[in-house]
Amino acid sequence: MEQKEIDGVLERVRTALETGNVSNAIAALTTLHPADQAEAFADLPADDQVELLPQLDSETAAGLLTELEDEEAADAAAQLPTAQLADVLDEMEPDEAADLLGDLPPAQAADALAQMEERDEVIPLLGHPDDTAGGLMTSEFFALRPHMTTQSAIDFLRGLNRDTATPYYLYVVDRQGVLIGIVGLRDIITSRPEALIESIMNREVISLPVGTDQEEVARVMARYDLLALPVVDGAGRLAGVINYDNIVDVISEEATEDLQKIGGSEALDEPYMLISFWRMVHKRAGWLVVLFLSEMLTATAMGFFEQEIKRAVVLALFVPLIISSGGNSGSQAATLVIRAMALGEVRLRDWWRVMRREVLSGLTLGAILGSIGFARIALWQSAFGTYGPYWPFIAATVALSLVGIVLWGTLTGSMLPILLRRVGLDPATSSAPFVATLVDVTGLIIYFSVASVVLRGSLL
Amino acid sequence: MEQKEIDGVLERVRTALETGNVSNAIAALTTLHPADQAEAFADLPADDQVELLPQLDSETAAGLLTELEDEEAADAAAQLPTAQLADVLDEMEPDEAADLLGDLPPAQAADALAQMEERDEVIPLLGHPDDTAGGLMTSEFFALRPHMTTQSAIDFLRGLNRDTATPYYLYVVDRQGVLIGIVGLRDIITSRPEALIESIMNREVISLPVGTDQEEVARVMARYDLLALPVVDGAGRLAGVINYDNIVDVISEEATEDLQKIGGSEALDEPYMLISFWRMVHKRAGWLVVLFLSEMLTATAMGFFEQEIKRAVVLALFVPLIISSGGNSGSQAATLVIRAMALGEVRLRDWWRVMRREVLSGLTLGAILGSIGFARIALWQSAFGTYGPYWPFIAATVALSLVGIVLWGTLTGSMLPILLRRVGLDPATSSAPFVATLVDVTGLIIYFSVASVVLRGSLL
Repeated sequence: MEQKEIDGVLERVRTALETGNVSNAIAALTTLHPADQAEAFADLPADDQVELLPQLDSETAAGLLTELEDEEAADAAAQLPTAQLADVLDEMEPDEAADLLGDLPPAQAADALAQMEERDEVIPLLGHPDDTAGGLMTSEFFALRPHMTTQSAIDFLRGLNRDTATPYYLYVVDRQGVLIGIVGLRDIITSRPEALIESIMNREVISLPVGTDQEEVARVMARYDLLALPVVDGAGRLAGVINYDNIVDVISEEATEDLQKIGGSEALDEPYMLISFWRMVHKRAGWLVVLFLSEMLTATAMGFFEQEIKRAVVLALFVPLIISSGGNSGSQAATLVIRAMALGEVRLRDWWRVMRREVLSGLTLGAILGSIGFARIALWQSAFGTYGPYWPFIAATVALSLVGIVLWGTLTGSMLPILLRRVGLDPATSSAPFVATLVDVTGLIIYFSVASVVLRGSLL
Repeated sequence: MEQKEIDGVLERVRTALETGNVSNAIAALTTLHPADQAEAFADLPADDQVELLPQLDSETAAGLLTELEDEEAADAAAQLPTAQLADVLDEMEPDEAADLLGDLPPAQAADALAQMEERDEVIPLLGHPDDTAGGLMTSEFFALRPHMTTQSAIDFLRGLNRDTATPYYLYVVDRQGVLIGIVGLRDIITSRPEALIESIMNREVISLPVGTDQEEVARVMARYDLLALPVVDGAGRLAGVINYDNIVDVISEEATEDLQKIGGSEALDEPYMLISFWRMVHKRAGWLVVLFLSEMLTATAMGFFEQEIKRAVVLALFVPLIISSGGNSGSQAATLVIRAMALGEVRLRDWWRVMRREVLSGLTLGAILGSIGFARIALWQSAFGTYGPYWPFIAATVALSLVGIVLWGTLTGSMLPILLRRVGLDPATSSAPFVATLVDVTGLIIYFSVASVVLRGSLL
């Protein structure tokens, strides 16, 4: 659906509501796909949302709440009378209903749950953290027994409510509910009607325990191209099924988290436009303060070289250029390695190969920047005489420092994520600003040390 | 599959190959899922790969090549004799075969294509760029006609080769091949055998033209939770189908690109461990040099304030602290806004709301860092007397500059991605190092301007 069509519908909904014609507003909204309904709904003023939602039938409201962002859905649902909220929750997929209940005020969630018809499907899902296999799974799945025939499986499918989501795979469980096999829908259609399920099922089922982290769930589903992944409890019993559409969200969510961390902030965990101002400032201030406190060491480091700066102020002029080059090359290396680790391209045991690559990269990149730096100083000198008779020494100081600092930056940037993973922390914690800060302090020491050797007897 | 099981198989394969027992090596390898086979295969020495691949049956080789990274697959496939390569390509999905052919040396690709039995399915896929809907689609799909009965559709499915991938949806086309409807597999099973396809098909089909960018394809499939998306040519004729597993890769790929750009490098477009050293240095050096050249302006800017630095060397000591704070807050804001734009949370028309948020954030964060900076100077002064009698002026200079620079950093960081999108560029180009560099130069000017006002009559 094009953006302008959604905007057009939004306009019609608002006009209808202004003239008090709620049924026209609903008619306009429901021409859209639920995902687009959610976008239009979210753009309505709060008053209009409160007016419209209770007038929708339960199925439409359920589709809308499923597609809204978690926080928007909770805010909207909180406005519904309990009985109506229970009806809407009954229309949602059990896992979506469980997520929404978890975001509602506890008292309201308990009341709504008590009035739900399908609460028995939702209650087992409530105890699992959102970011685990248990939190992602739905209890709506189809378990067959090994001694059924394919014909009875088809009859069973025919008997299902048409609103039930289409299963991609059917799971086979034994008498204790333990998962023992999987059958594709198509295998059932294309086998003889009297064939037994156990004769067509695949016994090599990939499954994960309820407590598995969502990142691992996404990795497994993407690796094996699974449309649905069965989740088992401690005894191997089928507890639920994770559908692929959850995984698309997880992959996107995990990339967002990594990116926000690399950018030097805590993961927001909420959309930028929806998170409250103070929560956002809180998530951003933490790292900024830590970085600021660490960066204070640069003032201390420069303090050690105060006498050198007094004697050769020209040294101070290149400080930003020098340290930012270390920071930039470090950010680059860190980002490449963090992403390669997240994608499984770089593993812990590859550290030595990464280090060898980055030492070579650092030397090469440092030599490139160092040559440009030398050329810049020579050029300014010949044009304006900026740096006086000792300019070759100044140029050599800058060039040599750049090689050292860029090498040090790439090495720190590439090894820090690996080190963090090694000690069990998230590699993405070694954010671009964090690496830059680390490299700034050491970069200053490298620069002034090189200067004190090269410029001894001339400027110092 | 656990990593150590894959490693165990790898060990057995290598031992078998060392003793010249190729059939044992194959037996060990084929106990694994193709995705795991590919991982073990990629870890084999090149000699072993060359020895093993031609001995695999076509189906196993096809599964292996499909799961390898593009470059690894092309290197391995290039070792096969043409006739065998053609057999392996015939066993692959047409879209995977087309991708592999595109990565092979042109002469070898042409020879292999000429010997393929299924070349008619692959040739139409070859003309589309990799990152468009046409490049992602497969020509292996199932088109029904509106006047078929569900029973004849089931018979048609039963007649398919069992190796054919399971279709999630069946598409309905008219006499000209124009896409007019879609039917779920389950609707076919659960309808009466004599029902006509046109009576159960859904006429509201979401489809995209062949030229659509892969990012848009991923957005649409994720938004509408589609397992498969039909692709149509200019006349609305069904040209191919994109399956959801491609989308997981695209989402991951796009996030990788954004991340690498934000880290201040060009997108590598190849896995970190596989890209050649010089290609990688090339992709990294470009931005580093641009940043370095821009950062040279800091030396020029500081040159303007050389006299001030000579008179008050203490000013130079805080330069790294001050400019890095601007860079860090800018990187943070840029990353948050870039990701929010990629996720569709922030649109161009939201620029004013983003700016309002960031002005407030910048002032708050600047005030926090400014207070800490003031406290640090006061503390050092009372402990060591570091800054002399004028310390309150120095502290005030640092604190006020921090407020200004952090505000300027967040504002630049947040507005630059929006501006880039507005003029049709990729917002992720405003990388963390790029924003930091921009803010460094202006940060110095802010800092020394504040200093020249606050310190006039005391230190300056």
